[in-house]
Amino acid sequence: MKTETPFELTILGSSSALPTSDRYPTAQVLRVPGRFFLIDCGEGTQIQIRRQKISFSKINHIFISHLHGDHFYGLIGLLSTLNLLGLKKDIHIYSPSELKTLIQPQLDHLKADLQFKVIFHPLNFKKPQKIYSDKKVEVFSFPLKHSSPVCGFLFKEIPKQRNIKKEFIKQYNIPVAEIKNIKTGADFKTTDGKVIPNAELTTLPPRPRSYAFCTDTVFLPEITEIIQNVDLLYHEATFTESMKDWAKKTLHSTAKEAAEIARLAKAGKLIIGHFSARYKTVSEFKKEAKSVFENTETATDGNTYKVEQH
Amino acid sequence: MKTETPFELTILGSSSALPTSDRYPTAQVLRVPGRFFLIDCGEGTQIQIRRQKISFSKINHIFISHLHGDHFYGLIGLLSTLNLLGLKKDIHIYSPSELKTLIQPQLDHLKADLQFKVIFHPLNFKKPQKIYSDKKVEVFSFPLKHSSPVCGFLFKEIPKQRNIKKEFIKQYNIPVAEIKNIKTGADFKTTDGKVIPNAELTTLPPRPRSYAFCTDTVFLPEITEIIQNVDLLYHEATFTESMKDWAKKTLHSTAKEAAEIARLAKAGKLIIGHFSARYKTVSEFKKEAKSVFENTETATDGNTYKVEQH
Repeated sequence: MKTETPFELTILGSSSALPTSDRYPTAQVLRVPGRFFLIDCGEGTQIQIRRQKISFSKINHIFISHLHGDHFYGLIGLLSTLNLLGLKKDIHIYSPSELKTLIQPQLDHLKADLQFKVIFHPLNFKKPQKIYSDKKVEVFSFPLKHSSPVCGFLFKEIPKQRNIKKEFIKQYNIPVAEIKNIKTGADFKTTDGKVIPNAELTTLPPRPRSYAFCTDTVFLPEITEIIQNVDLLYHEATFTESMKDWAKKTLHSTAKEAAEIARLAKAGKLIIGHFSARYKTVSEFKKEAKSVFENTETATDGNTYKVEQH
Repeated sequence: MKTETPFELTILGSSSALPTSDRYPTAQVLRVPGRFFLIDCGEGTQIQIRRQKISFSKINHIFISHLHGDHFYGLIGLLSTLNLLGLKKDIHIYSPSELKTLIQPQLDHLKADLQFKVIFHPLNFKKPQKIYSDKKVEVFSFPLKHSSPVCGFLFKEIPKQRNIKKEFIKQYNIPVAEIKNIKTGADFKTTDGKVIPNAELTTLPPRPRSYAFCTDTVFLPEITEIIQNVDLLYHEATFTESMKDWAKKTLHSTAKEAAEIARLAKAGKLIIGHFSARYKTVSEFKKEAKSVFENTETATDGNTYKVEQH
C-alpha cells in the first residue's frame, strides 16, 4: 500500500507591488511532510497563514526571493507573532544578505523577548546553488533577472529507494544487509546461486515531485534548464502582451512569456501570478497563457495546488 | 443653511498583538474635512485602507501611539505604496522618537525613488502636548501607561465663529470690518447710536466635536481630565474582568475599566477594541462595558462611527 505524502502549494498572496482588495502581496507555502516552506513574505502573510489554518509551528524555513517590499514586509510581523506564540525553534531565512541590515533594528527592538535564533543564509546571484536539504527534500536557488538581485527557488523531493516486496524477504530469507542493497537496485543471489533480478524483487518508488518558484523576472529562457520537467511551476506574469514593452522595461514578464517558460521547461502545470493592480480581472492573462501552455491556472489567494504522487 | 462637515472614525484593525482571521492589528482613520488622520498603522493597514476606498492622497499625518509591532508594522508598506502611487506631499509622523531608527534602514532602501519627505515629530511622554493644528482641527497627545512608552491622542475641532444673519448685514449696512467683530461676539452700534445685541445678529456655530484614542494602557483615571466631555472615545479593552489581574500585570485594561473611563470622562459614546485573540467572541466585552457605560460599541473592522454636528 502506498502512503500518500503531501506536496502542495498554497497561494497566500498573488498581487504585485500594490496589494488590491482581494489579493495580498506575494507569499506562498509549500507543504511537504512535516513542514511548510514559506516562500516570500509580503505584508499580511501572517494573517493569510492564520486564515488558511496553517500551523505556525511548522514554519522554520523562509525563502525570500528579493528585497522589494511586496516580497518581505510581512516578515517582521510573522517573526514577532512566532515569538508571541512561544515558539522556540530556530528560524532559517534564505535571502539577499542585505535583508539582515534592513530588519535587524526591528529584531533588536524585539530581542529582549526573542526566544529563537534567526539565522540568515545569503543567496548566490551568480549561479544555481543547493541551499537546503533534509531526508526528503532539497531546495536550490537560481538567479533570475530583475531591477533588484533576485533568485527563484526549486524544491525537489529526494528520490526514494525502490520498495522491496515483503513476500520475497520471507521466501528467500534475505538478510538485512542485502535488503539495503536491493533497495538501491542490486539483484539478489540465493544461497544456491540463483540470481533473482532486482526488477522482480522490487517495485518502483513514487517519482520525486518538484516545484519551481519564479518571481519578478524578465523573460529568461535559460532558467528552463534547471527547472526542466518540473511538476508545478509558478511564474510571475505582471502584465499581458499588450504591455510587453513596459514589461521588458520594468524587467517583468507577460502571461505569454510565463507560458513559454512552462512550455520550454516541459512543466506539468503552470500557475501565473503577481498581476499588476491595474488589471481589473485576470481573464486576459489566462487566455494568453493558455494559448501557449494549456495547463495554466491564474493564482488565487487561498487556493491550494496539489502535486499527486505517481 | 448649515453645511454638514465630516468628523468620523473608521476602524481598520481592532485586534491586539495577534491578528485573527477577521481582525487586523490596530489602525484607524479619523475623517475630517479635506483629510484623513491615520492613527496607528498595524500590519495590513494599506490593505484595509484600499478596502474602505479611503483616498491614499488625503493621508499626510500619521499618529503612532507606541512601538509595539501591532501598532506600526504596516507603516513601511504604506509609505512604499504612497510612493508607488506617485504621491509627493510630505508625510508627518507623530511617534516615539525611536521609530525613526527602526524604519530608517528600510526608508533608505526605498530612498532612491522616494518622492516625498518623511518628517518625524517625537512624542512627549511626560505631559499632554499640542502636536498638530490647522484651521479646523487641533491634536493633542497625552501619556498613557503601558510596557512601552505610549501616548493617547485627542482630536478637537477648533470652535467656529458665530454665524451672522445675512438679512441684518443688508438692513443695517454693516461694514466688513464690523462683521469680523460681530462673528467673535461683539454687539453692533448703528449710525444713529442704537445697539443691536450680538445674540440678535448671530446664531450659534455648531459645537466643536472631539475624538480621543486611548490604546494600550492600564486603567488610568487621571486621563479623564484631558478627555473630559469628549464626543467619541476609543479605549482599549484587551481583557474582560475575569482576567483583571492579568490585565493589570500586562498593563492593559478590561472592558469594565474602559467603560469606567468613559463614564468619568462624560464621553458621548465609547468604542472598545484591541481584544485579545484568546476570546472567541466579543459579547462578554460588550455586556461588561455596557453595565457601566450604556452607549458602548465593540469595534469591528470596517465600521465607521460618525460624530454628528450639533
